[in-house]
Amino acid sequence: MYNKLKQEDIAYLTNLVGAARMRTGDAISEDYSHDEMGGVSRMPDALIRVMTTEEVSAILRYANERRIPVVVRGSGTGLVGAGVPIEGGIMLETTGMNQILELDENNLTVTVQPGVLLMELSAFAEAHGLLYPPDPGEKSATIGGNISTNAGGMRAVKYGVTRDYVRALTAVLPTGEIMHCGGKVVKNSTGYSVKDLLIGAEGTLAVITEAVLKLVPLPAITVSLLLPFDSIKAAIETVPVLVRSKASLTAIEFMERDTILFSEDYLGKRFPHTTAPAYLLLTVDGNDQMVVDKELGNVAELCIAHGAWDAFIVDTQERKDSVWSARGAFLEAIKASTTQMDECDVVVPRDRVAEFILYTHEVAAQLNMRIPSFGHAGDGNLHVYICKDALEEEEWERMLLKAFDLLYGKAHEMGGLVSGEHGIGYAKRAYLSRAVGEEQVMLMRRIKAAFDPNGILNPGKVV
Amino acid sequence: MYNKLKQEDIAYLTNLVGAARMRTGDAISEDYSHDEMGGVSRMPDALIRVMTTEEVSAILRYANERRIPVVVRGSGTGLVGAGVPIEGGIMLETTGMNQILELDENNLTVTVQPGVLLMELSAFAEAHGLLYPPDPGEKSATIGGNISTNAGGMRAVKYGVTRDYVRALTAVLPTGEIMHCGGKVVKNSTGYSVKDLLIGAEGTLAVITEAVLKLVPLPAITVSLLLPFDSIKAAIETVPVLVRSKASLTAIEFMERDTILFSEDYLGKRFPHTTAPAYLLLTVDGNDQMVVDKELGNVAELCIAHGAWDAFIVDTQERKDSVWSARGAFLEAIKASTTQMDECDVVVPRDRVAEFILYTHEVAAQLNMRIPSFGHAGDGNLHVYICKDALEEEEWERMLLKAFDLLYGKAHEMGGLVSGEHGIGYAKRAYLSRAVGEEQVMLMRRIKAAFDPNGILNPGKVV
Repeated sequence: MYNKLKQEDIAYLTNLVGAARMRTGDAISEDYSHDEMGGVSRMPDALIRVMTTEEVSAILRYANERRIPVVVRGSGTGLVGAGVPIEGGIMLETTGMNQILELDENNLTVTVQPGVLLMELSAFAEAHGLLYPPDPGEKSATIGGNISTNAGGMRAVKYGVTRDYVRALTAVLPTGEIMHCGGKVVKNSTGYSVKDLLIGAEGTLAVITEAVLKLVPLPAITVSLLLPFDSIKAAIETVPVLVRSKASLTAIEFMERDTILFSEDYLGKRFPHTTAPAYLLLTVDGNDQMVVDKELGNVAELCIAHGAWDAFIVDTQERKDSVWSARGAFLEAIKASTTQMDECDVVVPRDRVAEFILYTHEVAAQLNMRIPSFGHAGDGNLHVYICKDALEEEEWERMLLKAFDLLYGKAHEMGGLVSGEHGIGYAKRAYLSRAVGEEQVMLMRRIKAAFDPNGILNPGKVV
Repeated sequence: MYNKLKQEDIAYLTNLVGAARMRTGDAISEDYSHDEMGGVSRMPDALIRVMTTEEVSAILRYANERRIPVVVRGSGTGLVGAGVPIEGGIMLETTGMNQILELDENNLTVTVQPGVLLMELSAFAEAHGLLYPPDPGEKSATIGGNISTNAGGMRAVKYGVTRDYVRALTAVLPTGEIMHCGGKVVKNSTGYSVKDLLIGAEGTLAVITEAVLKLVPLPAITVSLLLPFDSIKAAIETVPVLVRSKASLTAIEFMERDTILFSEDYLGKRFPHTTAPAYLLLTVDGNDQMVVDKELGNVAELCIAHGAWDAFIVDTQERKDSVWSARGAFLEAIKASTTQMDECDVVVPRDRVAEFILYTHEVAAQLNMRIPSFGHAGDGNLHVYICKDALEEEEWERMLLKAFDLLYGKAHEMGGLVSGEHGIGYAKRAYLSRAVGEEQVMLMRRIKAAFDPNGILNPGKVV
């Protein structure tokens, strides 16, 4: 179906971009063969560090004519294999397109290239008294990657997800056409929203080469509360109570003691409190100290009335660092605690989170596996890790499938979905049709064909 | 290309839904032949008042097999002919599907049928201490229509548009398949966002039969400020100043004296102030009186420093009614002031609004036509009305095209788009390709074919 990259193709592409930005064969680092989760791997045949929209267009047009697969890669921090070139071919690496092109303070937008890192964008916005709200744990991900997975992060409770902050995209179709979707405008009902289709498409429909993002004024005050509870059930069952109380919370994270201990080990840093079996970590932001204090007081009181042992204010820089660096290291810490793992990024209605977490405990007991988890209690998005530990390879694969079947089955039963923010990629394709139905997958395949008639862009992913 | 509705089709459909919900020929009111703007009209051959998803599916499957066009209609409040059956065929009327099915206070969602009216949904949410933020002027529009145009409204400055509040959709493909897209979940990266493609598709891709919408806590306090200015330029140029000042505003509307006077005539009600050439109407909401007062004070001071004559607080119910009922009646009032009119629903970057409005004045002078306007200064979405007044029909059509060409041309030049919230429908198709390019229109046509291979659903609209 696809053609191999030939010597003449390499010569053409080298001539197009210059030898300095082209690698082939052994000159490509092994890093480019896998993502952060590493369940699937293959080396690309050519690695091109792209720099402009026009260059991307020329490469795609060439590859499309010759049926050569093309995969885009940012920082490679994905967790579902979406950036792995499973059919080989050309890999376009976007980290060279890392310019912040414009800050428009009249329209509160920032225009960026796709290779800008999330942490770079955050720092840039804050330096201008502004906030880019999406806040996934992985700060070294590129914005292009964040858009391609519709990344959410911790502030989604108050601010929503990446989709809510993308005003416009420049993208190149697999056939080479350059498209401008959306604009520096707040409202848009001008034809089908191609922009919204590209968001979360995991690089299978077009290559994003520029984005106009919405910013918001930076809140003057951000304070967190750490709340220890007797059990994960008690902790998480407080969340619908908080939602119903109409508390204005920015983040509602949950964590279990085990995960915190892994993180302490991993970072070599102490967490402020570790004697409780489970914790909620809440954030309130605002511009008026009195209002923020009042909200914190109400929330603390409500949590204590629902079983929290106490409410520790996380307001000094030192405490913030210790709590949030631990939270940011959970994934790495769990990874370091086992030989191999795979992840379930389910999202369920917010009032079913406790039930789902208890179910992961049941599955862990039933399968005799370790299944730690943490995540976004406030938006129902859970990161559940199935650990290989001492299992043999074959047994691991069998047990992993079993665990996935049970967990995704339960999520589906609860009205949940396969992925909240990490995507479908390669690893979760089998579960997509169960979640949305075979007919909707067929519709998605027809949409894919509308963008990419020869299927050259990120083949074997999503649908 | 399409087949006419035959007697046997009518017999089949009548048998399917029952005679009470089926009308044909002269039994159909003339109202169903046009929308609120009325530039294009044609009677449907059959009008079916649908009641269930399954019924819609059975009708679509039948119509698709026989190549009979199908158009969906809610309240018929559209302004671009999207709900007009220009090829005849079957019209599905959704106003019978008007149940609010569930309020989920744990997840802050409401599940509704598409025929629920915006004003019904607003009242229902408020009765439960919640807010459905999208707030288009036309309160008797259906939610299905609002979703199909991605309606925005006045609170978009703070709260965003309809798209931001749609968590899930049940929709029927033209081929009869029933699809569930999204869920009661806050985050979603599970395959392509079919839901976001249906939002704003003006009924050309699928028929929406159920929606899960996000609600937010109802702010305890909502206060507006009415600010008179020397000129529309002075008024609107204050808007980027407000944006840069990071004021937290819910709505920023602009209005000219002429429009206010039409509205006074139309409603037979006095507006609180009419001696200034132009006004801004700002809204602040919140839960803390002190914070709201402080914000209002800052905003008033800033506006006065930029030329506002004064700042009138609109806080009593009487004053709110007088100001907002006038604002809500602008469209009808302008319509009543002329023999015929057409609308330009452009959206431009927020800092170009003043420039665009001044340009409409230039065009009015140049073409010797009346072109009143009002709209959402805070989000760059302007409603500009080209009035026929005493022009002869032929001259009117010629001049209207000329005005549209100039206005859309200017919007495009400014990085704006053809429609902020009313859609493309039938009337604005010619301007879509100018806005997004012929290649993107071709892509949209391929997307249309992925949903509707026989093109039976709302033919001749959008693409």
